[in-house]
Amino acid sequence: MVPDKMIGIVGGVGPYAGLDLMKKIFDETAASNDQEHLPVVMISESHKIADRTSFLLDKTKTNPAFAIVEVIKKLVSVGATVVGIPCNTAHSPHIFQVIKQQLRESATKVTLLHMVEETARYLTDKVAEVKKIGVLSTTGTHKTKIYPQILQRFGLQAILPDTTLQKQVHRAIYDPEFGIKTFSNPVNEKAKEILIDAISQLEQAGADIVVLGCTELPLAITQRKIGNCPIIDPTRILAKALIRAVDPNKLFPF
Amino acid sequence: MVPDKMIGIVGGVGPYAGLDLMKKIFDETAASNDQEHLPVVMISESHKIADRTSFLLDKTKTNPAFAIVEVIKKLVSVGATVVGIPCNTAHSPHIFQVIKQQLRESATKVTLLHMVEETARYLTDKVAEVKKIGVLSTTGTHKTKIYPQILQRFGLQAILPDTTLQKQVHRAIYDPEFGIKTFSNPVNEKAKEILIDAISQLEQAGADIVVLGCTELPLAITQRKIGNCPIIDPTRILAKALIRAVDPNKLFPF
Repeated sequence: MVPDKMIGIVGGVGPYAGLDLMKKIFDETAASNDQEHLPVVMISESHKIADRTSFLLDKTKTNPAFAIVEVIKKLVSVGATVVGIPCNTAHSPHIFQVIKQQLRESATKVTLLHMVEETARYLTDKVAEVKKIGVLSTTGTHKTKIYPQILQRFGLQAILPDTTLQKQVHRAIYDPEFGIKTFSNPVNEKAKEILIDAISQLEQAGADIVVLGCTELPLAITQRKIGNCPIIDPTRILAKALIRAVDPNKLFPF
Repeated sequence: MVPDKMIGIVGGVGPYAGLDLMKKIFDETAASNDQEHLPVVMISESHKIADRTSFLLDKTKTNPAFAIVEVIKKLVSVGATVVGIPCNTAHSPHIFQVIKQQLRESATKVTLLHMVEETARYLTDKVAEVKKIGVLSTTGTHKTKIYPQILQRFGLQAILPDTTLQKQVHRAIYDPEFGIKTFSNPVNEKAKEILIDAISQLEQAGADIVVLGCTELPLAITQRKIGNCPIIDPTRILAKALIRAVDPNKLFPF
């Protein structure tokens, strides 16, 4: 235990994605009683943080980066030393670079992990045989090419849905009638069906593995494999990276 | 939305009980997108908070009240206006009264809800026909008679396990081989079996309804009924009370 270190979570992007990250931090921590768990703080101020995809698709709105920075400062004020943002879309350079710049300018002392880079690193280190990575995401993440660009830097190739399939995937997340952001618990069957079909289409398009590149998706797809296709959950990878940053000895070995 | 109000959760008592409370707050909030959710902050510093039952059974150790007060102060420093502690045992007068006194002495401006009183009020208001309330809890909660005393004030009678059964219930929570505090996700089948048997024994002893009087128990017993016996989850009642304290219009009606 390193008591002066603490994990911070920018919650609310969305609320259940924050919970899912915190749960995976506890799940991946080697602890046999309450006292052996690592310190974690989460602030979920979803009402203050504009939708990340809406911002990316229509740049005239306020950049959610500024509200995210305010949350990070609060996390740091109560002791957080390393922070994760459980929202892939927030890692678009248009948002993430502004967050980094604001933190630098305000001299906020904190390590901010990059969820998508952590995922690419994991794929390179742990599943060396795969090269073609299917990616499911919001249309915001899709259009700003976050995954293809970062995967390429790590020598990997992204396989993305075509426009028609992408619209379906986005609806599985955002549709007010059945999307995960409206029905998180339990997730609507229609959202699940769309996503399982999308995974199968990416596999047919050559993907060796599929990344759930939106933190709402692991709420719907909890399996580690769909058919023969292994599923990668960046929320779990971020959880492990946050634990490692605080105390590598606390990382559950399996 | 009342943006200057915020829910605070004393996490880490235990870590999964904190998560469960936060999840139930989101579940019980009427929201159809991220931005409609209420602001919530949780600090999980389980390594600093001594086990509540150990303190109650051996008064020579540090009162966990002091560490809990430090967490509450941090929650308030980032905006929390109403706070819940998802640990029944922490509501024993030996702990809870010290927390209240410390908050008064430090002039900390916050509304601290009392989980057990909220549960007794719910039972009186919502399920008026029941009078005999079975209570499953840790041995700390059991010995300090938190539930019987508070239920009595509300005109209700507690039905508690006898010494042999209480030992079993406590093991279902704390046993290092199968207890919920060691195996939270998934919960071990042996812990579930002990608890289902205990509910049946309380029913045979006259209980009309059974309260899961330890926040680890709803992780194992997720059903609303076991056989014919309705199950009451104080974590869900606390979640609803916290929402009501911030904005009653946000409380999901069903």
